[in-house]
Amino acid sequence: MKALVLERKGILALRDIDLPTTVGPHDVKVAVDTVGVCGSDVHYYTHGKIGPFVVNAPMVLGHEAAGEVIAVGSAVTHLAPGDRVCMEPGIPDPNSKATRLGIYNVDPAVRFWATPPIHGCLAPEVVHPAAHTYKLPENVSFAEGAMVEPFAIGMQAALRARIRPGDVAVVTGAGPIGMMVALAALAGGCARVIISDLAQPKLDIIAAYPGILPVNLGAQSLRDVVMAETAGWGADVVFECSGAARAILDLPQIVAPGGTVVLVGMPVDPVPFDIVGLQAREARVETVFRYANVYDRAIALMGSGKVDLKPLISATLPFADAIAAFDRAVEARPTDVKIQIAMRG
Amino acid sequence: MKALVLERKGILALRDIDLPTTVGPHDVKVAVDTVGVCGSDVHYYTHGKIGPFVVNAPMVLGHEAAGEVIAVGSAVTHLAPGDRVCMEPGIPDPNSKATRLGIYNVDPAVRFWATPPIHGCLAPEVVHPAAHTYKLPENVSFAEGAMVEPFAIGMQAALRARIRPGDVAVVTGAGPIGMMVALAALAGGCARVIISDLAQPKLDIIAAYPGILPVNLGAQSLRDVVMAETAGWGADVVFECSGAARAILDLPQIVAPGGTVVLVGMPVDPVPFDIVGLQAREARVETVFRYANVYDRAIALMGSGKVDLKPLISATLPFADAIAAFDRAVEARPTDVKIQIAMRG
Amino acid sequence: MKALVLERKGILALRDIDLPTTVGPHDVKVAVDTVGVCGSDVHYYTHGKIGPFVVNAPMVLGHEAAGEVIAVGSAVTHLAPGDRVCMEPGIPDPNSKATRLGIYNVDPAVRFWATPPIHGCLAPEVVHPAAHTYKLPENVSFAEGAMVEPFAIGMQAALRARIRPGDVAVVTGAGPIGMMVALAALAGGCARVIISDLAQPKLDIIAAYPGILPVNLGAQSLRDVVMAETAGWGADVVFECSGAARAILDLPQIVAPGGTVVLVGMPVDPVPFDIVGLQAREARVETVFRYANVYDRAIALMGSGKVDLKPLISATLPFADAIAAFDRAVEARPTDVKIQIAMRG
Amino acid sequence: MKALVLERKGILALRDIDLPTTVGPHDVKVAVDTVGVCGSDVHYYTHGKIGPFVVNAPMVLGHEAAGEVIAVGSAVTHLAPGDRVCMEPGIPDPNSKATRLGIYNVDPAVRFWATPPIHGCLAPEVVHPAAHTYKLPENVSFAEGAMVEPFAIGMQAALRARIRPGDVAVVTGAGPIGMMVALAALAGGCARVIISDLAQPKLDIIAAYPGILPVNLGAQSLRDVVMAETAGWGADVVFECSGAARAILDLPQIVAPGGTVVLVGMPVDPVPFDIVGLQAREARVETVFRYANVYDRAIALMGSGKVDLKPLISATLPFADAIAAFDRAVEARPTDVKIQIAMRG
Repeated sequence: MKALVLERKGILALRDIDLPTTVGPHDVKVAVDTVGVCGSDVHYYTHGKIGPFVVNAPMVLGHEAAGEVIAVGSAVTHLAPGDRVCMEPGIPDPNSKATRLGIYNVDPAVRFWATPPIHGCLAPEVVHPAAHTYKLPENVSFAEGAMVEPFAIGMQAALRARIRPGDVAVVTGAGPIGMMVALAALAGGCARVIISDLAQPKLDIIAAYPGILPVNLGAQSLRDVVMAETAGWGADVVFECSGAARAILDLPQIVAPGGTVVLVGMPVDPVPFDIVGLQAREARVETVFRYANVYDRAIALMGSGKVDLKPLISATLPFADAIAAFDRAVEARPTDVKIQIAMRG
Repeated sequence: MKALVLERKGILALRDIDLPTTVGPHDVKVAVDTVGVCGSDVHYYTHGKIGPFVVNAPMVLGHEAAGEVIAVGSAVTHLAPGDRVCMEPGIPDPNSKATRLGIYNVDPAVRFWATPPIHGCLAPEVVHPAAHTYKLPENVSFAEGAMVEPFAIGMQAALRARIRPGDVAVVTGAGPIGMMVALAALAGGCARVIISDLAQPKLDIIAAYPGILPVNLGAQSLRDVVMAETAGWGADVVFECSGAARAILDLPQIVAPGGTVVLVGMPVDPVPFDIVGLQAREARVETVFRYANVYDRAIALMGSGKVDLKPLISATLPFADAIAAFDRAVEARPTDVKIQIAMRG
Repeated sequence: MKALVLERKGILALRDIDLPTTVGPHDVKVAVDTVGVCGSDVHYYTHGKIGPFVVNAPMVLGHEAAGEVIAVGSAVTHLAPGDRVCMEPGIPDPNSKATRLGIYNVDPAVRFWATPPIHGCLAPEVVHPAAHTYKLPENVSFAEGAMVEPFAIGMQAALRARIRPGDVAVVTGAGPIGMMVALAALAGGCARVIISDLAQPKLDIIAAYPGILPVNLGAQSLRDVVMAETAGWGADVVFECSGAARAILDLPQIVAPGGTVVLVGMPVDPVPFDIVGLQAREARVETVFRYANVYDRAIALMGSGKVDLKPLISATLPFADAIAAFDRAVEARPTDVKIQIAMRG
Repeated sequence: MKALVLERKGILALRDIDLPTTVGPHDVKVAVDTVGVCGSDVHYYTHGKIGPFVVNAPMVLGHEAAGEVIAVGSAVTHLAPGDRVCMEPGIPDPNSKATRLGIYNVDPAVRFWATPPIHGCLAPEVVHPAAHTYKLPENVSFAEGAMVEPFAIGMQAALRARIRPGDVAVVTGAGPIGMMVALAALAGGCARVIISDLAQPKLDIIAAYPGILPVNLGAQSLRDVVMAETAGWGADVVFECSGAARAILDLPQIVAPGGTVVLVGMPVDPVPFDIVGLQAREARVETVFRYANVYDRAIALMGSGKVDLKPLISATLPFADAIAAFDRAVEARPTDVKIQIAMRG
């Protein structure tokens, strides 16, 4: 099967590679239609590793996928050939304690697409467990279906926040994940979301959504805006999506007494944390790792029209141009949010 | 001061009555602009009592009010004359255990407008604690401000439900409270809300909102619709707003495993409850009593445009016609949701 | 293998029967040491069914078991032959939505020992998934290990209650499950537990534990005791373990404002429920169905000495006398809490 | 009235000073019996300030007090002269948003004993709001009553942790607060508590309680012990009570997937925090600031015998020797946990 293979750091190839094709009783086979390019795919391309995960052998990239079911295993009842679906890229060990607890995202034995040494989905066909394959509503396109994975991270952040209806939230950092978090927070019950960044083009994209208040940190003090918007009380929830040391240190300045901080951004090294500042407001701090049990929720919000991710799809390239798609993603243009690859295009 | 006085069961008068006018250090005086007519006001008018609360002396009606601050006490800092505000009608005892816990709605010593023997707000001016008086955003009218009180019940139900983003909810009963609950649930994070009733005009009003799926119980099985909409899983949250014995008995048929039931409707007598049915799904059941700490949340959602209550204001009559307004409310036309009285009109 | 077989309603036999002996890669084989007799085992014996579960073919009884590992599958790493263990009797479908959510107890596809048509564990050996087999600490005997299953129900109730340290709890009904709930509530953070029943011998057994306050309903008003013990506030948590209509109707009389009711008892039919009474206190109502993810917690509490279940083991009979053990259980002597069968005795 | 006055940094005097004596309608007057010496009292003595709180005028010290009611205001119903009580030292503003929410501990306007410029309770008599004065059970002595305040911090930590019955907890740091947290965690539902420190005498004192496992960091690796005790899973809850940078940085090494960290210790400056490590386990982090709504819970646990704080009272000096008591507290002997002053001795 011809797939997009990361041979080693810096070297991509669109070439034949052996991939599993046997459909087990609980599996489905899917003709992949659309795959989004994620920052982690790009990072493996440019760095050959992410933290402890190192690309030691050729690996197919891609983990944000939607497609069409073309075969189902003998025990599968909720899916049939022809169904339009998207796939959750992490497959947990059913016998682990984390899985039994329902927090399969933190199962150390999880096998996740395009996390070495597991192949990803930038290939014409994939075999996947039916239990982690989700039907798309008629009004959700394949392109949107391939957005479910990045949106799932926003959903996980919104779930961990335990948003209460009418909360005012802040999102620090308007990168792709910050945008996903902002939209999940709004759809998930926030009255409005203040989002901060230094890059105006990013703020312009997300500020087009109603309920979003952009703050350009080069021109305004985030703290001043938050206090003005909340009558001096502070934000009920702060989603830290920048990973920037300054933003993390200043969290106590913007969170409300009894409020919540959700740490989504991943600073490379330990960063200074103002514990006493958070204690003075008795804030709760949640952390987020991938997602669990959010795909059907994400799809429900997209299907009902509460969340429209189409404006965040910046460009779509055919599979034949997959390497070009990655090279454009490497550029990190401020006006690009998500680049997708049309596998059948 | 001329006020709308319930003399005794069935007898209303628009007449002068002595009401407090002294503004204490923590109080504000408000020129009342708009008052909504609530089912409880009507019930006192037609029955002279609600449960243990009996009208034994003339009492001013009304507890859904918005107006303009005309004086503030010496210790008040967050409000000033000219501010447009709405008022939370229950004033708890600051020394009670319930208040200390933050659940002042269940403080037995709460003093609540138009709950005997406390006078309500259908008068040109009221004196009220500043701590229970909330500023309206510029884009929220007095008429909408007077809708905050009934919407607050919906908010309390949505908060108690602990909605998770993307939940599918059911509301049984499309009366005014059911509608408020449906809108709070949608704004509060539900992907969609299925609402059931026997009266098509009521369903038509609420179904005009996106995200609402109406079910006329005379024509469809609620259970069938819920299972079709949730792939057989059941509703994540069921808000019981009908108070009807049949709806209450059938709750286990529509709630998902691990799901939540919120009991909002108030059946007059104890009703049969299918405990074993709920246990088989290990459902959680929440109850709701008025509201606490929701006014600012309600106002935030209205101010941000996520909740538009204007379509639920069915008619507005001038204060001089207040008795006519009550008589129309007694009619309970299926196309009437909320009737308001313009106090300065 | 010789097992205790329920041939049909009322007919038990200790006889040979074919049972699975193949140890799969994720399984263990256990030499059963002790099995407790549960009310549900007895009910199948005397009635031939429980609700929709009907004994249509001979079935081995028993689901409260501890024993010694004698073989392990190739993929099992956390257990080895010689380990002393107890077994969780329900095996969920790993591909179900409920299992993925971590609430595998409400998975409709769960296979549960001695729930028709699944054979139970009153046999010398059983094969069981390693993931549902738990090692016993050295200071927990096999007899105590066989108590983990009934105690797990108490643990599930305590978990669902979300006890806050220092809560005052009430348990209505001092049967075996009520006792388990009372001990789990105490170990789980309650300051004290008030337990009510009409049978003084039962109250005497549980009142021997410190922190338990017994109330004989023939002599005292439960409400009076609760209000005296809580300065008129009510109980933070009420565990309803009687299944009695009267106790269920009176729940609002004893629960505190903002308190919690946990419905453990299973009334055969729907019973009158005082919804308005619960609303006035804005109580939360939890329901309980078996248990999930509590075995290691239960074992930890027993191993640390916080929970001693030995006083609740009323009699132990050898496997050869298993039918006599069941006939004694049918008697339901008020001084009998748990009867166990020593399989190797 | 003769009181223990901190004249300025380093200068204590037992001398007459004017203190309020008027009993308002909601107040009580209490003859103080016992006052504990807290680390913050000592810090004001030795440093003249704590963070932004500076002693600019003579201030009476002490905030851990129990005594006997000698007068009650006209509106007080739940207390009477002769009642043995302890007092919650922080009095919140009843009109603040934090108070209305029930989180009065984070009310910026709270007035707290012996936090400048508010006088403390090291005086023969104090006037205090009845709503923050709690009756002691007969079996709780005045000396134990004066331990409620420091124990309340442990209770707040245990409440914020949302302990689930059978949790395994770690407490890092065996100072007085670490000990209080360990006992609250055990009483609050933990199966056992592992506590670490470098000072063996401190570990010896707390290890005398059943359920406590001491770890001397000079001799053992905390991580190794935690993993051995939890079969490699990690601690369900980690209470960080040392404020030490090393302990804070290593938190991800000992907390379980999906586990909870409670930050109790207060490092003077921001410290490095391993956000990515916590994310990998999707840990929740709670912070603690004083306490709210825990006094009755703390007293209930002490009254029921679940918590015995008497072994932590290291020495009791008469009021005449109050300055000597402070000087001994300054020594910080490792065998001293709490030094108390007998006001009537």
